[in-house]
Amino acid sequence: VSRALHVVLVHYPVLDAAKAIVTTAITNLDIHDIARSARTFGCGSYFLVHPIEAQRALVARILTHWQEGSSGRRIPARKDALALVRAVPTLEDVYNELGGRDAIEVWVTSAQVARPPISFAEGRVRLEGAGPPVLLVFGTGWGLAPEVIAAADAALEPISGAGAPYKHLSVRAACAIALDRLRGDR
Amino acid sequence: VSRALHVVLVHYPVLDAAKAIVTTAITNLDIHDIARSARTFGCGSYFLVHPIEAQRALVARILTHWQEGSSGRRIPARKDALALVRAVPTLEDVYNELGGRDAIEVWVTSAQVARPPISFAEGRVRLEGAGPPVLLVFGTGWGLAPEVIAAADAALEPISGAGAPYKHLSVRAACAIALDRLRGDR
Repeated sequence: VSRALHVVLVHYPVLDAAKAIVTTAITNLDIHDIARSARTFGCGSYFLVHPIEAQRALVARILTHWQEGSSGRRIPARKDALALVRAVPTLEDVYNELGGRDAIEVWVTSAQVARPPISFAEGRVRLEGAGPPVLLVFGTGWGLAPEVIAAADAALEPISGAGAPYKHLSVRAACAIALDRLRGDR
Repeated sequence: VSRALHVVLVHYPVLDAAKAIVTTAITNLDIHDIARSARTFGCGSYFLVHPIEAQRALVARILTHWQEGSSGRRIPARKDALALVRAVPTLEDVYNELGGRDAIEVWVTSAQVARPPISFAEGRVRLEGAGPPVLLVFGTGWGLAPEVIAAADAALEPISGAGAPYKHLSVRAACAIALDRLRGDR
């Protein structure tokens, strides 16, 4: 038995290219790809955080299409993955759904070193031990706002490859790699 | 120094849900996400294989938008990644661009065990040694046609996580994880 792991994708507060705090739009493939990765790596749920009601309604409409419409019958595996998805207004709502901020550990991700990080190997060991559920938090746009990173319990190291300094993975790719490093079969 | 690694995304011949051989449509985020992952993990190029000229023209138009238009100035890192992209009609064309079938090794990927696979750990070791360039081939739709898998030099093991039997990652996520397992900094 290992600790519960949940994925969170934040659309506010996140940074834009000029490091201003902004709200980003929901991207359809963020819903699908990250739900499929979360399902593959045994996550308990996948929260999309968006403050705008109309954007959360868009998520709900996409989910209904796959859970009750013909697409769900055509691709049952997609329906299974999308069953993990929840859209909520704020990070606080995520915490509350899981028993409150004190009942969980929040781990943030970043393409740059924003505070002293833990390695993925260390994260993997921590997840295999005993402890509260872990929320793995990703930012859209140019990444999570500093206040979200500062308020977390831990920050994972940036992902890099082949010694290359290029740090511009899509959030869909970064989430897939992070989950594989933390929970992939080796 | 390690061997050159190239990524190939095949749109024909691939399988549909009923295991028939089909041609799939180009997906915009397949271009972007896989180019960004290929760039992150030091790949030499990223080939999209599509037999239909109008679909290759769509790729060219998207590339021009990013390489010559305002978007490339707005996000230079995206321009760097998309510089790796080539759209060609067939897998044979990919081989020919790299010196011919005998000058390269072709490694296919699959969500199911289609032939005796090599592990990612073994693939990582092979890439660190000496040898010809490696083409890492991914299929869209429900995966590469059996003839492509049979004609390859090696097949990588399916990706799995947390002991879960769910095998439905997006090709964008599968490619990110495969490149990280083969070339990620540990």
